[in-house]
Amino acid sequence: MVSIGLLGFGTVGQGIYRILQDKSEELRALLGTEIEIKSILVRDLYKERKTEVPLSKLTLNPEDIVGDDDIDIIIEVTGDVDLSYRYISQAFERGKHVVTVNKAVVSAYFEELSHLAEENDVFFLYEASVAGGVPVLKPLKDHIRTNNISKVQGILNGTCNYILTRMTEEGLAYEDVLREAQNLGYAEANPSSDVEGTDTMRKLRILSTLALGASVTEDDIICDGIDSISDLDISLLREMGRKAKLIAEARLVEGGYQAIVQPKAVPVGSYFSWVNGADNSVSIVGKYSGVLGFQGPGAGMYPTANAILTDVIDCILQTQKKTSPLRGRRLENRNEDIRGNYYLRISDCDESMKIPKEYIKEIIHDKGGDFAFITEEMKLHDLLYKLAEYEDKPFSLIAMED
Amino acid sequence: MVSIGLLGFGTVGQGIYRILQDKSEELRALLGTEIEIKSILVRDLYKERKTEVPLSKLTLNPEDIVGDDDIDIIIEVTGDVDLSYRYISQAFERGKHVVTVNKAVVSAYFEELSHLAEENDVFFLYEASVAGGVPVLKPLKDHIRTNNISKVQGILNGTCNYILTRMTEEGLAYEDVLREAQNLGYAEANPSSDVEGTDTMRKLRILSTLALGASVTEDDIICDGIDSISDLDISLLREMGRKAKLIAEARLVEGGYQAIVQPKAVPVGSYFSWVNGADNSVSIVGKYSGVLGFQGPGAGMYPTANAILTDVIDCILQTQKKTSPLRGRRLENRNEDIRGNYYLRISDCDESMKIPKEYIKEIIHDKGGDFAFITEEMKLHDLLYKLAEYEDKPFSLIAMED
Repeated sequence: MVSIGLLGFGTVGQGIYRILQDKSEELRALLGTEIEIKSILVRDLYKERKTEVPLSKLTLNPEDIVGDDDIDIIIEVTGDVDLSYRYISQAFERGKHVVTVNKAVVSAYFEELSHLAEENDVFFLYEASVAGGVPVLKPLKDHIRTNNISKVQGILNGTCNYILTRMTEEGLAYEDVLREAQNLGYAEANPSSDVEGTDTMRKLRILSTLALGASVTEDDIICDGIDSISDLDISLLREMGRKAKLIAEARLVEGGYQAIVQPKAVPVGSYFSWVNGADNSVSIVGKYSGVLGFQGPGAGMYPTANAILTDVIDCILQTQKKTSPLRGRRLENRNEDIRGNYYLRISDCDESMKIPKEYIKEIIHDKGGDFAFITEEMKLHDLLYKLAEYEDKPFSLIAMED
Repeated sequence: MVSIGLLGFGTVGQGIYRILQDKSEELRALLGTEIEIKSILVRDLYKERKTEVPLSKLTLNPEDIVGDDDIDIIIEVTGDVDLSYRYISQAFERGKHVVTVNKAVVSAYFEELSHLAEENDVFFLYEASVAGGVPVLKPLKDHIRTNNISKVQGILNGTCNYILTRMTEEGLAYEDVLREAQNLGYAEANPSSDVEGTDTMRKLRILSTLALGASVTEDDIICDGIDSISDLDISLLREMGRKAKLIAEARLVEGGYQAIVQPKAVPVGSYFSWVNGADNSVSIVGKYSGVLGFQGPGAGMYPTANAILTDVIDCILQTQKKTSPLRGRRLENRNEDIRGNYYLRISDCDESMKIPKEYIKEIIHDKGGDFAFITEEMKLHDLLYKLAEYEDKPFSLIAMED
């Protein structure tokens, strides 16, 4: 009997519970043992839930789970950082494996928790924390052993990708699509961590630290979101044969690495241009492997729960390693060298006068108070320095993908 | 020290040898032991090779490898079926793990070899046999444990995809692109197993037997290739907003399953329409996971060698299971129920008279002796029965993807 403690019982937690019920016989045959969810940490015992569960399994006290010697594996599906960090590190110290979906806590304590798990000879797995239901971290961990990874890129936030897809396909305004996404449950009431890029940045932090073999922390990543992209931007990009996508990327460069989350104008027909709706996608470029692409649902009850269960089964069958997959390479951050051509739209024409003429390669729109142009190839750093002069961010900045 | 015997030293074998040389220190640090290629089976000791290797490692005698008690892992990179089968089964019986790229031998003896490996408590891994460098079989084996897979689809032959891509992008004739692909080394001098679909069919046999949990043998798969597709077909499809792709697919249906390899006209913008050049791609549809996509190089020295090495490392770290991943489900073959709309082009107009009028939904071309139309929705079985009346196959048949 493998005994599981579940920290959190929202959508994903309930998905795990349901799949384990549906597949219990098959799993017993496969594993030669039974998986039981022994206790579930909730905030309200009597809240009405869509999943029926015996009251005796619910608890308000985390110690009932983290302190229970019978529990072998903790599945952490809260969104919290500080409490989760405490539960996870306590679980490790008590010899329990931990599987988590919580990118915020992995991002905040990646090195420390990886080290602590190894030290306590337990598994620390987090497949679902990046790209939700898409199996990408496990193949990546396999590949970093033989394949020198030079670049990872991804569409890592389903909410942003849904909003940009709807804006592109239906010509809708950002605010209208956001409201629709909130009504459908695709976006949170407070969508800032999605639309401002924070969620994507955390996932890039995890992905790039694994891929590059060096600690890439949140502070090492330039981060922008999609909240200033307008329907005008989308339509101007369309005329250029491009689509806007929020792209996370990290790459090795001369002297170090670069890591950035930013809206990019990708050419129609390129790999990421066809990742639509709430899907996520990751591409990995390796010395030996060439370009590998992974795509699928970035969120959702069952896709996420299913990804978590592949980790749980790896704990039970011991088919991953307990040793930390992080390598301690020291790489210098070279974000100040990031260069490119940029699409820039400024909403107040007077303000646009502040832009030095030599930045402008091609004006593509100058009407009704909106001024949009493509920059010469230049350092992002210099452009951001200039744009810092503006108050209230009356502009939209999108990198042109080669 | 882990000792490896290499059966075959062509492009992929040499790739393995080179990567192991390049990465030897990193691998020693990672694995805590050294990997050595002890012996290599070749057909000619003195042939000039692009990879330098001590003559003492080469042998003409398979018994020097399969019979060597010091060798732990056999990597099989020949293309042969019967000899390979003998080597692999002997290796299992002598307690050696086997990693192979050889889809022909896996396809021919999948159940038997999987069973024999389990019986002898050794690993039998074949990641590179399907979709070359793309890590898809390992994630699939993870997913079949919890996720009910209802469908797998793939572009599984780089040569065919290269030919179709070039025909589509450059408007070239099939024969010209084939000749070019042969000159570039993308296609064999005798390309029949690629262009007639046999290679794709073997990969579907492996993929679908894993995914559906039931034995899908070569005989259970309807198989067609790309060798009758003309530049006229490609251009007529383009006018309909479609591209031709050789698609392998297997799916659960009412009462059983269907499995087929056939050219399909996929809508521009759909997932497979953007898999170009020699790339391969697999999509997996599961009850819990939704649609997952995997893409990357379907062949090539380093991508394939790298995929093989991920298997080798799994043998060493014991991070896969030795138990067979095949399940013995009995599913009925329902290929006779396959239905759809089909694009059919007949080159001899007199011959086109044989087609019953009620088959035809829309005539799209009738000029210069070529007659092309889209059928009503109908059983493929009925259409093939009718087409069997033709001698010399003066037609091109392409399924319309929904």
